[in-house]
Amino acid sequence: MTEGEVRTRVRYSETDQMGIVYHANYFLYFEMGRTEYMRSRGHAYSDLERQGMYLAVVEATCRHKASARYDDVVIIRTRVEGITKATVKFYYRVFKEEGEGEVLLAEGTTTLACVTAEGRPRRLPREVADALAT
Amino acid sequence: MTEGEVRTRVRYSETDQMGIVYHANYFLYFEMGRTEYMRSRGHAYSDLERQGMYLAVVEATCRHKASARYDDVVIIRTRVEGITKATVKFYYRVFKEEGEGEVLLAEGTTTLACVTAEGRPRRLPREVADALAT
Amino acid sequence: MTEGEVRTRVRYSETDQMGIVYHANYFLYFEMGRTEYMRSRGHAYSDLERQGMYLAVVEATCRHKASARYDDVVIIRTRVEGITKATVKFYYRVFKEEGEGEVLLAEGTTTLACVTAEGRPRRLPREVADALAT
Amino acid sequence: MTEGEVRTRVRYSETDQMGIVYHANYFLYFEMGRTEYMRSRGHAYSDLERQGMYLAVVEATCRHKASARYDDVVIIRTRVEGITKATVKFYYRVFKEEGEGEVLLAEGTTTLACVTAEGRPRRLPREVADALAT
Repeated sequence: MTEGEVRTRVRYSETDQMGIVYHANYFLYFEMGRTEYMRSRGHAYSDLERQGMYLAVVEATCRHKASARYDDVVIIRTRVEGITKATVKFYYRVFKEEGEGEVLLAEGTTTLACVTAEGRPRRLPREVADALAT
Repeated sequence: MTEGEVRTRVRYSETDQMGIVYHANYFLYFEMGRTEYMRSRGHAYSDLERQGMYLAVVEATCRHKASARYDDVVIIRTRVEGITKATVKFYYRVFKEEGEGEVLLAEGTTTLACVTAEGRPRRLPREVADALAT
Repeated sequence: MTEGEVRTRVRYSETDQMGIVYHANYFLYFEMGRTEYMRSRGHAYSDLERQGMYLAVVEATCRHKASARYDDVVIIRTRVEGITKATVKFYYRVFKEEGEGEVLLAEGTTTLACVTAEGRPRRLPREVADALAT
Repeated sequence: MTEGEVRTRVRYSETDQMGIVYHANYFLYFEMGRTEYMRSRGHAYSDLERQGMYLAVVEATCRHKASARYDDVVIIRTRVEGITKATVKFYYRVFKEEGEGEVLLAEGTTTLACVTAEGRPRRLPREVADALAT
C-alpha cells in the first residue's frame, strides 16, 4: 500500500483566536497531501488539468484529535482508500512532531469525482486509476 | 425544530481555478450558520467565549451537490442534530438562489466539544444546551 | 464623489492567534467593497468577466489603525481614487461599529489593471470608466 | 545585508477563478518569509510571543509583476529594510522558478509594531533589534 508524505509548517494565518489551527485548514493540508501523492504516482494533478481532467471534491470528512499551533511542523500522510470508474477516495492523517515522536492531529477523507472542464462527469482514465491504486 | 438562516455573497477570494467555490470554504459558511443560529437562540458564541466556554470542532463532514460561483448569493440553513453533556452536533445545508427557487449546493455536519480556554473538556452549561436544543 | 458601503460580520476563520482579524483579510474586505461599489455603478464585476474583461490587482496597500474581533460588524467604504486608460485605483476605509459611533480600523488602496482572459493588457471600456469615475 | 529564503508550492486553495494566485495570498507568503528570516536570525517569532512580545502589522504593501499558478514553486526572499525603537519594516520579493532562471512575481513590505499581549505599544528588545538589523 503506497503512502505519500509531505511536511509543512503552520502559518500564522492558519491559526484562529483559540490559538490553534482553524479546523477547516486541515482540508488544505489534505489537499497538499493529495497533490504530492498524485505526483509521486506519476500523475501530477496540474498535468491532468492541462489534459482536461478535473477532480472535484464531492465529499469531505475530518476528525480532530489534537491541536496544531503556529510554527509546528505538520506531516501529512496520504493513501488511496478506494477507486471507482469515476471517483477516487483519499485517506489522510496529519501528525505533528513532538519530542522524538509524532502526535496524530487529525484524520479524514475526501472523495473526488472525475469531471470535464465544464463540470460534467467523465471516467477516470485507466492509467491514472491504475497508478493511483497501487 | 428551530432552523437558523443567514445569507452571504460568494467572495472572489473564495473561488479557485476551477471557477467555483473552493470546497473547504463551505466550512466557513457552516461557521457563519452556526454563529447566527447560536445568536438567535440567545447565546452568541462570542459571549460564551468571554465566559470561558469554547466550542472546538472535533468532527466535520460535507457532501457537495452543486457549485457556487463568485457573486452568487448563498443561503446557509442550520439546525442542531444532537446534544450530549459535552458536545453539540450541527447540521447545515447551503443553497444558492437560482431563478425563483433554490438549489442545494452542499450539506454537512460539525460536532463541537465544549472545552475550557486551555482546551480541556468541560460540560456544556445546562441553559446553553437547553437553548440550542429547542 | 460616489462612495459605496457594505457591511459584514467578522468570521471566526478570519481571526488569528492574536485574537484579532488577520491583517491580510482586510484585502478580502476591500474586495467586498469593490464588488459592491462596481455593482452600484451599474457594472457588476461578474458581468464584466463574462464579457471578457478582467481586473487584476497590480498594487495593494493597507494601513492598520485598530483591530477587529470575531463577530464585530465591519463597514467597508469604497471610492475610486483615480482612473487611467487601463487601470482603476480604489480607496477603501474599514470601520467597526462601537457604541453609537464608528472606529476606523484600516484604510488602503488597490490598483487594478484591465486585462483579457489571457492576462494581456487592454483598455478599460469607456462606459465602465465613465460609470466608475462619477 | 542578510537575506532569508524560503520556498513553498502554490496550493490549489490559493488560486482564484482567474487561474492564478489570489493577490492577498502574497501576504501569506510574506509572512512565511518573515517567520523564516526571524528564525535564521536566532529569534523565532513563536518564542518571542511566548515571552510576551507581539509584532502586529501596521502597514502592508505589495506590487504584483507576474502571476503564479497552482503547483508552481515560489521562492520568498526577505530582508529588513528599517528598524526603529518599536517597529520593524520587512522587504520581500517573491519569485517563481521558470526554466533555469527565476521570474519576479511580486515585491512588497510590511511594517510591524512591537506590542504587548494586550496590544499596547512597547519597545523592541535591544537584542532582537540587533539580531534583525544585521
